[in-house]
Amino acid sequence: MSTDRVLATYLIETPHRVEDAADALAGEQSSGTFTQVPGETEELRERFLARVERIEELETVEDPSLPGALPADDLGRYRRAEVTVSWSLENMGTNLPTLLSTVSGNLSELRELSGLRLLDIELPPAFADAHPGPRFGIQGTRELVGVYGGPVIGTIIKPSVGLSPRQTAELVRDLAEGGIDFIKDDELMANPPHSPLEERVEAVMGVINEVAERTGKKVMYAFNITDDLDAMLRHHETVLNAGGTCVMVSVNSVGLVGVSHLRRHAELPIHGHRNGWGLLTRYPYLGMEFAAYQKLWRLAGVDHLHVNALQSKFWEPDESVVRSIESCLRPMFADDDRAMPVLSSGQWGGQAPDTYRLTGSTDYIYLAGAGIVAHPGGPGAGVTAIRQAWEAAVEGILLREYAEDHRELMQSLEKFGKLRRAADRGQ
Amino acid sequence: MSTDRVLATYLIETPHRVEDAADALAGEQSSGTFTQVPGETEELRERFLARVERIEELETVEDPSLPGALPADDLGRYRRAEVTVSWSLENMGTNLPTLLSTVSGNLSELRELSGLRLLDIELPPAFADAHPGPRFGIQGTRELVGVYGGPVIGTIIKPSVGLSPRQTAELVRDLAEGGIDFIKDDELMANPPHSPLEERVEAVMGVINEVAERTGKKVMYAFNITDDLDAMLRHHETVLNAGGTCVMVSVNSVGLVGVSHLRRHAELPIHGHRNGWGLLTRYPYLGMEFAAYQKLWRLAGVDHLHVNALQSKFWEPDESVVRSIESCLRPMFADDDRAMPVLSSGQWGGQAPDTYRLTGSTDYIYLAGAGIVAHPGGPGAGVTAIRQAWEAAVEGILLREYAEDHRELMQSLEKFGKLRRAADRGQ
Repeated sequence: MSTDRVLATYLIETPHRVEDAADALAGEQSSGTFTQVPGETEELRERFLARVERIEELETVEDPSLPGALPADDLGRYRRAEVTVSWSLENMGTNLPTLLSTVSGNLSELRELSGLRLLDIELPPAFADAHPGPRFGIQGTRELVGVYGGPVIGTIIKPSVGLSPRQTAELVRDLAEGGIDFIKDDELMANPPHSPLEERVEAVMGVINEVAERTGKKVMYAFNITDDLDAMLRHHETVLNAGGTCVMVSVNSVGLVGVSHLRRHAELPIHGHRNGWGLLTRYPYLGMEFAAYQKLWRLAGVDHLHVNALQSKFWEPDESVVRSIESCLRPMFADDDRAMPVLSSGQWGGQAPDTYRLTGSTDYIYLAGAGIVAHPGGPGAGVTAIRQAWEAAVEGILLREYAEDHRELMQSLEKFGKLRRAADRGQ
Repeated sequence: MSTDRVLATYLIETPHRVEDAADALAGEQSSGTFTQVPGETEELRERFLARVERIEELETVEDPSLPGALPADDLGRYRRAEVTVSWSLENMGTNLPTLLSTVSGNLSELRELSGLRLLDIELPPAFADAHPGPRFGIQGTRELVGVYGGPVIGTIIKPSVGLSPRQTAELVRDLAEGGIDFIKDDELMANPPHSPLEERVEAVMGVINEVAERTGKKVMYAFNITDDLDAMLRHHETVLNAGGTCVMVSVNSVGLVGVSHLRRHAELPIHGHRNGWGLLTRYPYLGMEFAAYQKLWRLAGVDHLHVNALQSKFWEPDESVVRSIESCLRPMFADDDRAMPVLSSGQWGGQAPDTYRLTGSTDYIYLAGAGIVAHPGGPGAGVTAIRQAWEAAVEGILLREYAEDHRELMQSLEKFGKLRRAADRGQ
């Protein structure tokens, strides 16, 4: 494949011949319009028309997956196919939002398609030159947090909303003294009246810096600076000046341009929270796959990116989570453009063996909520239990076996293993 | 309803009792977590927990609308309901991206919900104080373009991609001399190598300013400045300095924070292109309704917002388009926070009578592509034909009747009426 073309692969569903639907798709997103108009010369079409590179026919179905589609074909069928389309880089340059408008944009509106899902994109190296990518990534994050083996173990401040800066700092003290690596604000907590970000930074970093001086270990706290642009930049400065080492943004809510701008001015890792992602992906015949999505955010410069987790409380099947993890850990253009996957939701250590077995990696921020703070031995024991679970996973020892001489893990197994089994029975 | 609460209304589908699902939803998006944790006092829950305000049970279904949901209830059913939830403004303040994370965010990920769609939001006046809203809106746009009765008639430069600045300017000359009110770049055309925005502005505004001096009528050209933030601000300056009167952005691709920041610095109307919207709305049990969506963009400050159009080439049913139009035209807090709806896709004037009958308004930017440039009498006749169609619509005269002594409209009816009927037969 030529290296100056942008490629996008789709799952499509259509009552037309798939070749015709693919041509319509390519036309709609490049030089096409529904009637030939002045100026649309053959030379221009040749140079700018998107090309259909590959078609793989799949099954047919009787019912359209999306409303508003054209009627089924004469045999009452809609055809599914995987289709790869390419564009000259000349069509959009390295303009990131316009790339998104080109590979997705109006396509989901077409009556010719009763299903459309963006599966993946592949970009020419010009995008790497134009966009800085993650500033810290996996290696930079490990250095800042001082954890070189196993996952970075973290938690989320809960309750999600309502704690004052002082109450937040008190929780942080317990966690920091318990030896945790990473803490984050909830995505619902940014800069509300009851916990202004400046006050929260002052209170939390006071504790973190104090514990760090005493123990030599500085917790990375991801302050949620999601806000309008000037506020995000100001809050980033506040965090930086207080000795903080991470800022967090809700990437979908902020948008590509806001995150990209933050990256160009930020001197701290950007923790990318993907809340809103379910809306973009949960229906299988619309939206997009994480493989495509995460590339856009890595180009925009996030260092960490949420991926759910195995056996979580969310809808996503484990194999989809594994694919998401693998896509973050796969270089686009170079090793340092990888984003550190953030595993979160219902984690307590029990998922470590499967996670390690299925991905072969420990390059994670591994977040546990209740799994840490509701551990019978307190948050410190909760953190220790999770480290023990990952040690066992990496060494290939059964958790129950490893727990025999690792008390904190045993307590976790007793408490959370039971809860998990109850939840699985729908209780 | 208290005026200091944020309200969101959802369509939900769940195997649980709808009351329990609504409580889970409210908990997830406020102070909730799956295990009681330290610090979560009753007082805090009372103050910050989202409240379920209203539940209206709807039908039950046998199959879940989304994958990954919990199993059906004992009778094999999933229940649907409309649910309204409210939050204290104290939870998120007037932070726009965090508002989005709160009313949407992780909700689509919940296994407890086999369907979730955000139908509408209602915001306290504090949001109006914190966000400037549209700077020009309908009235300001009409003043800039000098059109006080009937829709602002416009077109899109086609082919979408590939014309040089000079070729673009040549098309603009024909259109401007034909008396058009408004022209826009395609959403796929921002600042590509073959038509750098600065050169396009210079070429196009050269023509527009020259025609304006001669005729007294200055065409509003929406230059697509979608790009990274610094480039958008720079391009806005370029357009402003060249005497241009509008900038366009692909709002979903840029994101809330980027658009909001542009609004605070822009001295020109912001033409909001919603490409990517289909992805957020086409599946009826996921995503959101336009009623909710357009409020966010009006708060962010767009002056114009695309809404598809009646009898278009897109999937959307006419009644949905009508609802979208009505929502843009309904004040949130004041008359001047309305956005001017942009009707586009397959328009040629034939849709004017239905559009006027169903909405009772002419406060539109009404875009026709081939309907103008492929008119048998040339672009000027195409524009005239559309004005005639709207005159007939407003006066309640049948198009065919009005066309008897309006030649341009007659030509349109002959050409596009036939095409339209052929398309309706699927040819």
